[in-house]
Amino acid sequence: LGRVTLKDVAAKAGVSYQTVSKVINRTYKVPPDTEARIWAAVSALGYVPDQQARNLRSQRSRMIGYSWQSETPPETSSNVQNVFLTAMVEEAAAVDYYLLPFSHPVRDAHVEDYRRLIGSGRVDGFVLSSIDYDDRRLAFLLEAGFPFVGFGRSDPDLDFPWVDVDGALGLKLAVDHLVERGHRRIAFIGWPAHSRVGDTRLGGYLDAMRTHDLEPEPELIARGASSFEFGRDAVARWLDFPTSRRPTAIVTVSDTLAVGALDAARSGGLVVGRDMAIIGFDDDPLARMVWPPLTTVRQPLREIGRACIEILIRLIKGEPVEHRQILMTPELIVREST
Amino acid sequence: LGRVTLKDVAAKAGVSYQTVSKVINRTYKVPPDTEARIWAAVSALGYVPDQQARNLRSQRSRMIGYSWQSETPPETSSNVQNVFLTAMVEEAAAVDYYLLPFSHPVRDAHVEDYRRLIGSGRVDGFVLSSIDYDDRRLAFLLEAGFPFVGFGRSDPDLDFPWVDVDGALGLKLAVDHLVERGHRRIAFIGWPAHSRVGDTRLGGYLDAMRTHDLEPEPELIARGASSFEFGRDAVARWLDFPTSRRPTAIVTVSDTLAVGALDAARSGGLVVGRDMAIIGFDDDPLARMVWPPLTTVRQPLREIGRACIEILIRLIKGEPVEHRQILMTPELIVREST
Repeated sequence: LGRVTLKDVAAKAGVSYQTVSKVINRTYKVPPDTEARIWAAVSALGYVPDQQARNLRSQRSRMIGYSWQSETPPETSSNVQNVFLTAMVEEAAAVDYYLLPFSHPVRDAHVEDYRRLIGSGRVDGFVLSSIDYDDRRLAFLLEAGFPFVGFGRSDPDLDFPWVDVDGALGLKLAVDHLVERGHRRIAFIGWPAHSRVGDTRLGGYLDAMRTHDLEPEPELIARGASSFEFGRDAVARWLDFPTSRRPTAIVTVSDTLAVGALDAARSGGLVVGRDMAIIGFDDDPLARMVWPPLTTVRQPLREIGRACIEILIRLIKGEPVEHRQILMTPELIVREST
Repeated sequence: LGRVTLKDVAAKAGVSYQTVSKVINRTYKVPPDTEARIWAAVSALGYVPDQQARNLRSQRSRMIGYSWQSETPPETSSNVQNVFLTAMVEEAAAVDYYLLPFSHPVRDAHVEDYRRLIGSGRVDGFVLSSIDYDDRRLAFLLEAGFPFVGFGRSDPDLDFPWVDVDGALGLKLAVDHLVERGHRRIAFIGWPAHSRVGDTRLGGYLDAMRTHDLEPEPELIARGASSFEFGRDAVARWLDFPTSRRPTAIVTVSDTLAVGALDAARSGGLVVGRDMAIIGFDDDPLARMVWPPLTTVRQPLREIGRACIEILIRLIKGEPVEHRQILMTPELIVREST
């Protein structure tokens, strides 16, 4: 069984050798249907570009592909993503690599972007962000045997290199802190059901509550968009409850949600830090600029970025990786909101 | 006079042909002093890598280098820079290009990064951010004749393609709005003297004040770091003035400064929007999340990014560019802080 060549791909796609080369090297635009046919042939045949020829030419690309799921509009994009992107650019530069960032609005369309970047030899490996359950990118990259590291985990039984913050521990730190201060009716505002990070953090909240013999109440759990408005509206609804059913404290999964919660409490005539406690997550610069400054769970984004790059470079070089799955410990930063 | 070749560079640097190739193609690390010697030789000889050979291989890189001056630590970096970076990644992708981002803590060291990226054929052009007076990158790129566009202007007599927001107009919109609401003692918080953007915006403030027959008072002008703390401390000092000398309104050059100002006013027992008016700049997501929500001057970052990419692609293709210097109009977003 011979090696699959560019010519095999051309024959299968019914186009010329040159056209395949143009598409794979991304040097010219070809009609979309032609391009689709070529990538289908690449995929069907399991064609791998001539790595040896590419190596002769330039050894390695010294580029790392980095992608994340973009939100619309980008002006509302999470500051965590933005700060992480900047940190990754600098951590890559520190080991003499460049970052090649790209975003994807729809996860399914996204595997094509990875296939192209591999096919054209543009990158030596990937760092993946915005990972969720059943993430097609993971299956694709594992099958392709191409070096990558995830910022975040996926299905528990999927074994791949990742670095993540211990979000469940973060929520536990938040709940413990509130219980210590005498709170018992502690509400939770988090991301939608069936989101990987949302489930992990909700789990941390539920476990921590039960540890303190507090039964979490479904009416004090709000899950939805990670927006200022969602946090504000959730708290506004709770403030309409009779006093006995109202939460006295709120934990959230992002500072943006917490600032929304803070806004609703203030609108409702409460003094946050005295009448109600609110805890954020991220330690976004925003957290210390609002009034009262937010108690929050700090993510070590810089350290996560550095660990991702370190693992990836070892994978690229084929060196052994001692710790290929790293769960980083978050830190509770206590400020006036609690 | 023959074309300068890799061999000439090798001879001048006193290293082998292979070593020069490794450095220029950035495929291997060589000792720093050797690398410095090679780049010095490249520079001295005016060596230009064999563009034709490179073109044969891959026509264009389809990559755009994008750099900005990084702040330390990156967690405090301006959200404007972060949002612009994300917008640029997506605007480049829309025309089938990738962005190659890199940051530089010290401007002087930075020309080397540009030289390397050009030398290794990694990018087809650059978008420059964090531009200031006497920016060495501009002189270097103009001399090299390499395609680039600036997000921002430099010395008025330096002719290069740029896209910028009309910061002076932004300050005028802010001052006009405050004068309309009856304010006369309007203070200014901005960036340091001798910074290009800082001077432009201060100029806009001064002109607008004089248009309304208001003589700007030196004691009501604070220039320094673009931080929450600088904004807060400036206002705290003004609140110590006797009432007749206190400002009743404040214009700033960033939302971060404005939020600091807001914090000081609140600490001083003032209700912002009633006892004091404060205006930000940027329309950062932060602006609508603080209390009271900030009136601010919105920068059309997405449109600026799109225009930068459009001009650059034309320059790369050698196509005529109708508008190579575009001054975009900012918009005043009125909220409760005024």
